[in-house]
Amino acid sequence: MFAPNGSLTGSIFYNPVKLIFGKDSTSKIGEEIASRGFKRVIITMGGASALKNGSYQQSIDSLKANNVEVVAELRDIRANPEVNKVREGVKLARENQAEAILAIGGGSVIDSSKALSLGAFFDGDVWDVPRATPPVSKRLPIFTVLTISATASEMNNGYVLQDDEKQLKVAYMHPDNFPTVSCIDPSFQTGLPWFQTVNGVVDAMVHTLELYAGADGSEETALQLDEGLLRSLVNCGHGLQKDPENYNLRANVAWAATLALNGYSGFSLRGGSWLVHMIEHALSAIDPAVAHGAGLGVLMPAVIEYLATKIGKKEVYDRWAKNVYGVDGYKAGMEAWVKDLKTWGHPTTMGELGFKKEQIPHIAKLVCDVGCPHGFTPEDVAAVIELAF
Amino acid sequence: MFAPNGSLTGSIFYNPVKLIFGKDSTSKIGEEIASRGFKRVIITMGGASALKNGSYQQSIDSLKANNVEVVAELRDIRANPEVNKVREGVKLARENQAEAILAIGGGSVIDSSKALSLGAFFDGDVWDVPRATPPVSKRLPIFTVLTISATASEMNNGYVLQDDEKQLKVAYMHPDNFPTVSCIDPSFQTGLPWFQTVNGVVDAMVHTLELYAGADGSEETALQLDEGLLRSLVNCGHGLQKDPENYNLRANVAWAATLALNGYSGFSLRGGSWLVHMIEHALSAIDPAVAHGAGLGVLMPAVIEYLATKIGKKEVYDRWAKNVYGVDGYKAGMEAWVKDLKTWGHPTTMGELGFKKEQIPHIAKLVCDVGCPHGFTPEDVAAVIELAF
Repeated sequence: MFAPNGSLTGSIFYNPVKLIFGKDSTSKIGEEIASRGFKRVIITMGGASALKNGSYQQSIDSLKANNVEVVAELRDIRANPEVNKVREGVKLARENQAEAILAIGGGSVIDSSKALSLGAFFDGDVWDVPRATPPVSKRLPIFTVLTISATASEMNNGYVLQDDEKQLKVAYMHPDNFPTVSCIDPSFQTGLPWFQTVNGVVDAMVHTLELYAGADGSEETALQLDEGLLRSLVNCGHGLQKDPENYNLRANVAWAATLALNGYSGFSLRGGSWLVHMIEHALSAIDPAVAHGAGLGVLMPAVIEYLATKIGKKEVYDRWAKNVYGVDGYKAGMEAWVKDLKTWGHPTTMGELGFKKEQIPHIAKLVCDVGCPHGFTPEDVAAVIELAF
Repeated sequence: MFAPNGSLTGSIFYNPVKLIFGKDSTSKIGEEIASRGFKRVIITMGGASALKNGSYQQSIDSLKANNVEVVAELRDIRANPEVNKVREGVKLARENQAEAILAIGGGSVIDSSKALSLGAFFDGDVWDVPRATPPVSKRLPIFTVLTISATASEMNNGYVLQDDEKQLKVAYMHPDNFPTVSCIDPSFQTGLPWFQTVNGVVDAMVHTLELYAGADGSEETALQLDEGLLRSLVNCGHGLQKDPENYNLRANVAWAATLALNGYSGFSLRGGSWLVHMIEHALSAIDPAVAHGAGLGVLMPAVIEYLATKIGKKEVYDRWAKNVYGVDGYKAGMEAWVKDLKTWGHPTTMGELGFKKEQIPHIAKLVCDVGCPHGFTPEDVAAVIELAF
């Protein structure tokens, strides 16, 4: 799905995003936009958090200092972003002749901005952008100020968007749709609520593990790196639970989350699995209130169990258990996963997310309507979901 | 020196190189050059190996198929490349109106090509490019076909060049001087002599450790990743000694070596130390026959010992010993380092490199003439070199 990156025998790596990382990095965003010749931006953002954590004001100050005009604002982009909000953005961007997008927020805001970027130059409805052939070739450049680390959207070319009416959540990777510049100031995250912090950490861990699932064991460098990312996320997750305002821990999680899905972690891993995401996308398409990270964390052990026993991934997951948790066998790794989630107050069952067993066939059908990885049938997917109850 | 990449509180990450990795990746190079509008290239290369391993012929075939003309060839670039050869290249490129450079070779060839790239548009002598203010702004685009993995020059913006007469070896990082596209086909490396293989592995390990030396211990993500790189290099190094033609092992080393110095491994590590390289540069300036990797491998434990005891890096290196070799204390890590080098038939003392203790003051002076890291005096540097005898 994201950052496929082939195998040891054939891969392409390309990621031109300029990252400005650290305290006050946002103060550079105006200059980065202006120096590329853009004078009119549309700002995209979520709710009140960008106003509260200072990211909005810092961005505005930097734009002003560099004579970049804010010609429109698309506010209130929600988690699990929806296509109607992006349609609104496309209209705003066109009406106001925006020359670039400044996304201030997390993955939902940046994902919506990527759809808007292409939609602004697409003749049809923005929902159909992923099916355009050839791909939409013109786009609004995207600049981002990241306020929560989780999806790595700040440094990749993918987005996920849903249509509530269709109960459909679709991922799309456009070859050129990378942000031009992303500012990551971990200070903005020191005040995040704990559940959002955990969801971000878990999201990054699952990205890494989705990619890890593509291994056959010969990819020593990729596996060592991914195990390192996972250990760092576990260690920093525990650290942040005790000390949520610790800047360095936030910064380490931020860097790990970016690396977990910017092409590096997946290099040579055959595109990974993405079964966890496919099922989670169905869950949040049914109930947009399900946090992405929460759904992923619940489903992960079920997917490990299924892939280990049904498609020969046992040795790969045994290695994961050993090298990330120091335990023997993938089942012990799954227990370690669940134990950490419980320690972090994260849900661990489908029931806790509000789903009932009767919904399994419907969820499985939604997954397979979009497309099943590993050649799985709806029965396979149903069996995985069953394991997560 | 290379890829400074600040700290957790302030870093920039930017690497726009497109990597095409895997078997037959070279067959794409003509299209990559032609599609960017370049029709006239100068080829840069070393000695006979590019002719023997097939990389030269594959490149020529791909250029022909895409109507790209080879207007000149700069051959016989040696290891520890020298400025006179680059001067020759500048003349050739100008006389023949080359529009781009195709480097076929390892770090020396690519480094020379980077100097040539800037030198072609510099009014003065190419040796003075690093001291131009402002930096040279026009450059010949660089495309590379990598034939030996070690320096990561295929994916960074630095080069090292020496002047034999001056006994001076200087490193330079230009903000934009990245290759545009690099092809890495590990097949070309399956026939490499063992000493070149080891030198490449050791070079990549030392790059990682130079950066690691910049840590204060708070950079959990960077440290975990670098430990992963080091473990992979150790494991694959041992694997290749038994099975030098193993494609997957070559591919894992290739990817690790690229990551070891493309900005990724050094992110947040304050630019690292680079003391090992500074001293090694003096060694090969004195005797160009000293292989870069050989000098680095010999000096590494001495530098660890000195930094651990004199500038407070003991805990960082204790962590390294534990996480890379599973041993307690940095001294045990140094022993593991030396043991691996001996197993690999790599020199471990200055004497084996052909140096005598009488030369220590001269070497130390050369190092400090270029600039000493950590505020070290020539006496400090001499003490480090003494430890390596």
